[in-house]
Amino acid sequence: MAVSLGELAVRFGCELRGDPETCVEHVATLLGADARSLAFLANPRYKPQLATTLAAAVVLDAASAKHCRVSALICQNPYVTYARIAGVLHPKPQAQPGMHPSAIVAASARIDPTAHVGALCVVGERVVVGPRTVVGVQSLLDDDVMLAEDVYLVARVTLCRSVEIGARTVVQPGVVIGGDGFGFAPERGRWVKVPQVGTVRIGPDVEIGANTTIDRGAVDDTIIEEGVKLDNLIQVAHNVHIGAHSVIAACTGISGSTTIGKRCMIGGGVGFGGHLTIVDDVVITGTTMVSHSIMERGVYSSGIPLEKASTWRRMVGRFKRLERLDARLKKLEGAAGAPHDQEEDDD
Amino acid sequence: MAVSLGELAVRFGCELRGDPETCVEHVATLLGADARSLAFLANPRYKPQLATTLAAAVVLDAASAKHCRVSALICQNPYVTYARIAGVLHPKPQAQPGMHPSAIVAASARIDPTAHVGALCVVGERVVVGPRTVVGVQSLLDDDVMLAEDVYLVARVTLCRSVEIGARTVVQPGVVIGGDGFGFAPERGRWVKVPQVGTVRIGPDVEIGANTTIDRGAVDDTIIEEGVKLDNLIQVAHNVHIGAHSVIAACTGISGSTTIGKRCMIGGGVGFGGHLTIVDDVVITGTTMVSHSIMERGVYSSGIPLEKASTWRRMVGRFKRLERLDARLKKLEGAAGAPHDQEEDDD
Amino acid sequence: MAVSLGELAVRFGCELRGDPETCVEHVATLLGADARSLAFLANPRYKPQLATTLAAAVVLDAASAKHCRVSALICQNPYVTYARIAGVLHPKPQAQPGMHPSAIVAASARIDPTAHVGALCVVGERVVVGPRTVVGVQSLLDDDVMLAEDVYLVARVTLCRSVEIGARTVVQPGVVIGGDGFGFAPERGRWVKVPQVGTVRIGPDVEIGANTTIDRGAVDDTIIEEGVKLDNLIQVAHNVHIGAHSVIAACTGISGSTTIGKRCMIGGGVGFGGHLTIVDDVVITGTTMVSHSIMERGVYSSGIPLEKASTWRRMVGRFKRLERLDARLKKLEGAAGAPHDQEEDDD
Repeated sequence: MAVSLGELAVRFGCELRGDPETCVEHVATLLGADARSLAFLANPRYKPQLATTLAAAVVLDAASAKHCRVSALICQNPYVTYARIAGVLHPKPQAQPGMHPSAIVAASARIDPTAHVGALCVVGERVVVGPRTVVGVQSLLDDDVMLAEDVYLVARVTLCRSVEIGARTVVQPGVVIGGDGFGFAPERGRWVKVPQVGTVRIGPDVEIGANTTIDRGAVDDTIIEEGVKLDNLIQVAHNVHIGAHSVIAACTGISGSTTIGKRCMIGGGVGFGGHLTIVDDVVITGTTMVSHSIMERGVYSSGIPLEKASTWRRMVGRFKRLERLDARLKKLEGAAGAPHDQEEDDD
Repeated sequence: MAVSLGELAVRFGCELRGDPETCVEHVATLLGADARSLAFLANPRYKPQLATTLAAAVVLDAASAKHCRVSALICQNPYVTYARIAGVLHPKPQAQPGMHPSAIVAASARIDPTAHVGALCVVGERVVVGPRTVVGVQSLLDDDVMLAEDVYLVARVTLCRSVEIGARTVVQPGVVIGGDGFGFAPERGRWVKVPQVGTVRIGPDVEIGANTTIDRGAVDDTIIEEGVKLDNLIQVAHNVHIGAHSVIAACTGISGSTTIGKRCMIGGGVGFGGHLTIVDDVVITGTTMVSHSIMERGVYSSGIPLEKASTWRRMVGRFKRLERLDARLKKLEGAAGAPHDQEEDDD
Repeated sequence: MAVSLGELAVRFGCELRGDPETCVEHVATLLGADARSLAFLANPRYKPQLATTLAAAVVLDAASAKHCRVSALICQNPYVTYARIAGVLHPKPQAQPGMHPSAIVAASARIDPTAHVGALCVVGERVVVGPRTVVGVQSLLDDDVMLAEDVYLVARVTLCRSVEIGARTVVQPGVVIGGDGFGFAPERGRWVKVPQVGTVRIGPDVEIGANTTIDRGAVDDTIIEEGVKLDNLIQVAHNVHIGAHSVIAACTGISGSTTIGKRCMIGGGVGFGGHLTIVDDVVITGTTMVSHSIMERGVYSSGIPLEKASTWRRMVGRFKRLERLDARLKKLEGAAGAPHDQEEDDD
């Protein structure tokens, strides 16, 4: 799709420096751009590329505009403006209203006439699919699932019985929502399954990445509030509650009944214990082990960066002999008549 | 489904304190219960909620019963009894015997007439499906798969050729069992695929969580014994052997040819090296790195709990300078005429 | 399939010690072999089993051959030779050319007449499927996907629009390639989705394990070069680039825009930060946290092996009091008149 810079400037509230009649057809990086490309500059590390870019125009802020030798769309938040323009130049494929003849849809399901149900989908009893919602190819909506308006299940999404999804939420392929939580009661060395009778309720404007799993609640429901963004291969256990506008990177696991606050930012590969509370506005860096609640906003970590393996082995050796090192220090302190440090013995 | 307390007391061997004619219809938490709810108390931290619960009745033990102001079903193991009653009040959806007309079933497959094969399933040659087994919607049973009686594949389960599943085992959506193990032989800087000719054999009463993967054996089989419970997004590599009644939490990975004993309890996000042996009754806490065998029962750990990032960075800095700290200590020891600690040099 | 040792010796360039007319039908471990089995010895730890194996023949190197009491196929690289022979004795199931009648294939798709498209597959507009390529049961090829020759999608593989797969590449079930990268621009406490307009290009001779996810690029493409082997449940974020012949074990996550060199070997459960560069020939041990670039070949680590939990808790306690320990040491150094170590204060 070709759009003129003039139209983009008006539509997205940018100051245009350049010919309003120039058209762009697609987005590109500064480095990869050609004369039909719109590029953007949000990360200062790429500023040197302004000097050589072949883009038709660049979206950037006023401070950077003076370094730009091609047309410029100047705005306050170039990354957001770029995102919106990219959505115009590269629109989501449109699905036709209606149900593919190969979809198997229960008679009691209520599919809005503007919704799309793709090939080989299975839709159970009493399912509700809202206006303009797209149920991508090979998806499964079990009995009593409810999808609001403008939901986009990309393809092959599994929603178990009674799961609810809010408006405009996007779910990538391979996601499983509403599988049974991991609940077993011990009895004489065996495990008795505890029926998982809650469900999962997901708010509007959520995004869920490929092959992520979100379990149904044991008794009450698992809850994902509005605007939450989950990356791929994340595990959300039963009765977890994730607050609005929190983002979580891939491979993170959240154990049962843990509550994460609003606007948190969680790195990749983080592991949360169960029954914890994380307050609003907490940032946790990648691969951190969260074994206790966090009651104060701030940035938290526990991962240790890598070293050459030979160095690392020595470090771990010293770590494992810290007790001995402490004893040696105590001995010297004793010899020097230094006072004994009581707290060192408290573990 | 409404059931009287009297019937529940008789059926599950509880002492009833209250009106046997009172009926309950569903389970609830103590906090969320209404007059048609059955709640339970297993975790002492919720005991204060007994004072205010609106439940019709509570399942609990004799010691807690005196604090209960509503009807009580008194038993020794309230969590197990609750689990069983919940199964009565919230029965698993019943699947009709027979095959959905959209399922594609090889002529040589032997499907028990009491079994159910759901919509859009694909069932290969010589597959055997036992009595009352449910093959959920969109599942794939490749050639020579064998399912015993009362197996429950919830939906969209992939069983590659020759996989065997024992009685009453439950498999959640997105699980892949019998994909090729990760076996490649190096040859002049390239990798030659080693055919994975074993299969996967899973015992009875196992549960496998959503999107978990269990690879087929390289030569011999990968084995999951009876009663094992696996959570979501777990990786079980080729020729792993997991002993009976062990439970493993989400996001754990087990490398090839590792053997885990019976009745082990493994936390989430644990990583096992390959070719290890873990004896029976071992407990491993979440995010532990298991790089060597464990020959003695007990509880094992290696994850480090998080800190504020600023504090953490300082700790890691000190950790990485432990060698220097040791050298300083040696110097002081030398000056003080303390004997040199030989073992400190052994790495 | 029965094959004579004589034929195997000729075909795979082995020296045969034994009767060339003896036939083998399947592979086995040294321990599990019977008189129709071919076994192999590649790992010296299994050498004692040569004394008692019942195999018809063993593939091994010249040095081990003298310990072998049954027929021997002697070669330089027994593991590779075994891999090739196993492929002969246990051939991959052959798929018939043609499309299963239940597959839903767009009219504009170009499926080579020698290719196979399995039951209940969905193939979008303008898809190209090359000669002898197998699209396994229930797979989804979205619009504009391109598969080269001899590709093998085992089953239930999801390829989003425009994904390209090279010749002979094998993809296990549950894999999702080309889901949207995790890109969101912050705006007043909310997240605006950044359209992911790149795709994923995968080279020839790649293998991708079950339920692994590979995201499409944000602007440019995500790239997996030839010969790369990815295990199960791996996350590859947008714009990652993995160099030829690198192997990555299960549960590893690679954040956006990170580049991994050629011939790297990455253990399981490793976490990579974003925008990093890892040079060629790097080895990273399991559960390592890779938070900065690696510019020199070598072996790198950061995981700490487990301990008994009681010991571990003490170690962590000491680790968290390292600062105090350092202060005590400084005090002693001061008292002894030792020079103050400046660098200890630099964090």
